[in-house]
Amino acid sequence: MSDGPVPVDASPTRPLRLRDLSEEDLLARIVPVYAAACGREGDVLLGPGDDAAVVAAPSGSVVATTDTMVLGHDWRDDWSSPQDVGDKLVTQNVADVAAMGARPTGLLVTLAAHQDLEVAWVEGFAHGIARAAAAYDVAVVGGDLSGAPEGVVMVTVTALGDLEGREPVRRSGARPGDLLAVHGSLGESGAGWWLYEHGYRPDHAGPWSGDGEPTPQRRRAGAMDHLMWVHRTPVTHPGSGALAARAGATAMIDLSDGLVRDAGRIARASGVRIDLDREALQRDFVAALPVSVLPEQVAWQQVLTGGEEHSLVATFPAGSSLLRDQDDPDGRWWVIGRVLPRGEEEPAVTLDGAAVSGQGWDHFGG
Amino acid sequence: MSDGPVPVDASPTRPLRLRDLSEEDLLARIVPVYAAACGREGDVLLGPGDDAAVVAAPSGSVVATTDTMVLGHDWRDDWSSPQDVGDKLVTQNVADVAAMGARPTGLLVTLAAHQDLEVAWVEGFAHGIARAAAAYDVAVVGGDLSGAPEGVVMVTVTALGDLEGREPVRRSGARPGDLLAVHGSLGESGAGWWLYEHGYRPDHAGPWSGDGEPTPQRRRAGAMDHLMWVHRTPVTHPGSGALAARAGATAMIDLSDGLVRDAGRIARASGVRIDLDREALQRDFVAALPVSVLPEQVAWQQVLTGGEEHSLVATFPAGSSLLRDQDDPDGRWWVIGRVLPRGEEEPAVTLDGAAVSGQGWDHFGG
Repeated sequence: MSDGPVPVDASPTRPLRLRDLSEEDLLARIVPVYAAACGREGDVLLGPGDDAAVVAAPSGSVVATTDTMVLGHDWRDDWSSPQDVGDKLVTQNVADVAAMGARPTGLLVTLAAHQDLEVAWVEGFAHGIARAAAAYDVAVVGGDLSGAPEGVVMVTVTALGDLEGREPVRRSGARPGDLLAVHGSLGESGAGWWLYEHGYRPDHAGPWSGDGEPTPQRRRAGAMDHLMWVHRTPVTHPGSGALAARAGATAMIDLSDGLVRDAGRIARASGVRIDLDREALQRDFVAALPVSVLPEQVAWQQVLTGGEEHSLVATFPAGSSLLRDQDDPDGRWWVIGRVLPRGEEEPAVTLDGAAVSGQGWDHFGG
Repeated sequence: MSDGPVPVDASPTRPLRLRDLSEEDLLARIVPVYAAACGREGDVLLGPGDDAAVVAAPSGSVVATTDTMVLGHDWRDDWSSPQDVGDKLVTQNVADVAAMGARPTGLLVTLAAHQDLEVAWVEGFAHGIARAAAAYDVAVVGGDLSGAPEGVVMVTVTALGDLEGREPVRRSGARPGDLLAVHGSLGESGAGWWLYEHGYRPDHAGPWSGDGEPTPQRRRAGAMDHLMWVHRTPVTHPGSGALAARAGATAMIDLSDGLVRDAGRIARASGVRIDLDREALQRDFVAALPVSVLPEQVAWQQVLTGGEEHSLVATFPAGSSLLRDQDDPDGRWWVIGRVLPRGEEEPAVTLDGAAVSGQGWDHFGG
């Protein structure tokens, strides 16, 4: 033991809380964490510490979007670590930028919390933000700290992006004859949520722990862990959004509220019907879920309506080279449907021509 | 009375709440309100309704800042109307853009609330946002809606801005020999807060209501109403921030946390001392407060440390034409101090050479 004073945060019985620090002390702890996410060279003209940040907008325009997560509403502390929350919040926002066909350039991060919140939570959250931002090659350029009522933790990210000279890919450009394709997974985040809801918990040891070859039981546990991990920290692929834009995507959206609901947004904005292909969805996505744990009906439900996946869904002219030559290092675009004219009284989204039940998420449950 | 069905929100005994509407129904009510704030022509390339907005950035860069307000923490429903809250939130953000010398171009608006919140509050808030945005000539381009725990209402704005080809005015450029000047009021918002705290309430009738000339009592009531109004809805002047930048301001900040604290930020970032001029502050600001209600000591305290004023404070080279020829239609820059070298052990901010007590606001009270 040293003879010097014991730092105030060294006691295991008394965790350091926001009330113990001034705003400047707290910033001094988290700004260096964010500094690890410095983005692409030339993107940040002025970083945190002034009244506002300055981010490069070489195209002469900036893409901007914002998303909020609320404790008890968008995450549970017994499921998600603060790192998970920061990671997911960045992904949600970057996915919205990617869905315009843009490259993310800067993030603003807001935390509103009661002064009882542990400083360790805030530091973990900042590490999650920084980890995801670094993975997506985007900088944290500023933000805000705010007090909040007891028990409240609320985090917001605003993401900025650059279109690299392209037009934005809107929801309204889908035309009859186009094909609908998805980049990334379908139903995994929703299946992970279903597992949590049904009492499963990750076995962080994983299927390759212990001696010898993984047993079927351990493989099954590993598949379940994977789904719960996707639910806690989904991933998106901004480079694939930009690639789709270059390849002539006519409409694009990121999957926040489920395939049926989000494809419906494209269909309504474009004045078309989107017909999902049951066989393609079954072969490429439903069959990929571990039906030994998840009833097949649940797998279908999550593929069609599971939220918070943050994969990209886009429409392409039928002959698009991107759908032929799948050269994206981040993975391929899977064709899962086609765009048709929409007759009066027809639903916006159908599955093999028939209406689909289940609509995905609504943030107020109305 | 019509024979038609009574709309669900027509009953005075059952106010419409968020739980009664889907997210899309709610958006259908507030997006048209925001549409009134369409900004300057050419600023909005893609407005609300897609995954992200696209805002013009003609300078090739974008200024970005964000600020949050929380019910019970940043406003009280018995003091502030929802319109007031929206108005103030826009001002806070626009002031940060202005303090960089930039022109605001776009706003993103986030609301996180429990489903018990009355829809009328949300509509009033949207009207406040739109009114202030229109006044500052900036567009509402997008945002987010989120659920929250019982009793929670939290609102966030992100503001974007364009530097019109200029360099950003940072906090770090003040040099010994510069003069410190303020544009707008000092201490009024803090004095309004003090009046509320001491039980005063606005008399919305105002001093010119009723017959005849206003009496001294009614004038006094009017002066108090004015201060409380400034506290609920301070104003800033983005055009004056841009004018200051063009006139060679060396450092600038907006007054969120009080003159001593915010001038201290310039002083520390610039490595200088800022000496406030007691006579100028007394003559131009303390004397303007109604000392018949507010003890002079309180007036001084609010001029030096009152927060949420959102006036701009900047340093200028001593010969600056802006300080000579006060041609800004929004009002003049008042010289209130000077920039000196900072000796070791010297405080960052002094008043006639002496240390100042009181430091303004800290968001966690640490």
